Amino acid sequence: MTPAFDKLQQHLKQLPGLGYRSSERIALHLLVEKPARLPALVVALEEAARSVRRCACCGNLAEGEHCAICADERRDRSVVCVVEQVPDLVAIERSASFRGAYHVLHGKLSPIHGVGPDDLNLAALRARVESGEIAELILALSNDVEGEATCHYLTEHLPGGRPVKVTRIGFGLPSGGGVLYADSVTLKSALDSRRVYS
Amino acid sequence: MTPAFDKLQQHLKQLPGLGYRSSERIALHLLVEKPARLPALVVALEEAARSVRRCACCGNLAEGEHCAICADERRDRSVVCVVEQVPDLVAIERSASFRGAYHVLHGKLSPIHGVGPDDLNLAALRARVESGEIAELILALSNDVEGEATCHYLTEHLPGGRPVKVTRIGFGLPSGGGVLYADSVTLKSALDSRRVYS
Repeated sequence: MTPAFDKLQQHLKQLPGLGYRSSERIALHLLVEKPARLPALVVALEEAARSVRRCACCGNLAEGEHCAICADERRDRSVVCVVEQVPDLVAIERSASFRGAYHVLHGKLSPIHGVGPDDLNLAALRARVESGEIAELILALSNDVEGEATCHYLTEHLPGGRPVKVTRIGFGLPSGGGVLYADSVTLKSALDSRRVYS
Repeated sequence: MTPAFDKLQQHLKQLPGLGYRSSERIALHLLVEKPARLPALVVALEEAARSVRRCACCGNLAEGEHCAICADERRDRSVVCVVEQVPDLVAIERSASFRGAYHVLHGKLSPIHGVGPDDLNLAALRARVESGEIAELILALSNDVEGEATCHYLTEHLPGGRPVKVTRIGFGLPSGGGVLYADSVTLKSALDSRRVYS
């Protein structure tokens, strides 16, 4: 179409789930059919980029110091579910099968991709364990080699002064798959069937 | 998640083809996985909103005075394909079965939706017909009541001083459907089988 249109389409096409046709359709929608929506979308994007940050406690998305889950006093903060990414947390929340707190690592150990312990959100997790407030740590990491390695690292390197029960979600997660793509029923059964990780 | 995140998701969900899950996935992508893409997307949106406008001649998207098709000297400007919307033009271009010029009405007559002749891009079409440069006008409008009414209006109200051949695409377009959703082969057969509109 025009250079600026093509550039916008290129940027839209990089978003997950959008291809050539769907990005073209959205660009036409924003420039021709409903041009009033474009500035509102820009404002929403800038507002989100400016105000959304990481929760100081668990690493989830937050707008203040703490995220909505950490700030919610009805959640059981003694049970902490460790996940790789925020979308994993969203998937578990959607299954409505967990009323504890979370800790988002923002990754998993992967030497082949150059991801080591220093790249993960581990210092905050160590501080939470040391504070003694955690009775159980549920490892909801991927059922693959990197997930296994990360579980192993966590049990070996968390402060051992105070005994913490460490479990790992088990049944239901297909081999090689991540938490993000599991359906709610599978996630619920995986949470229910967690077993002690040794 | 957070108020700004939810607001961004609401705006994304209004875009064509995006639902609750896909808009959530894109928002997480832009805020967590690839935050560097967000400012680039905002720039592309603003740049497109600022520089993309209507072609003074045909009503297509343009960045200068005229669109790429009107400025292309290899296109046959004596054959003009009249379409309702820019996406219709894009669909016909994609079928690579037309080498003439276009005229975008930006709508069709629809009394029930309050769209009259003054709401369509008709003045520029009248000027093109009056200039005598058009030998054939191909009406590529929807195969529905409003499309039929618009075709009728065009043949009745275009200046009759110079005889212009008016045709309408016919075979292949399913009843009740618009140009936008037809596939390339259907559009090619529809263009090939155009008949004189009386």
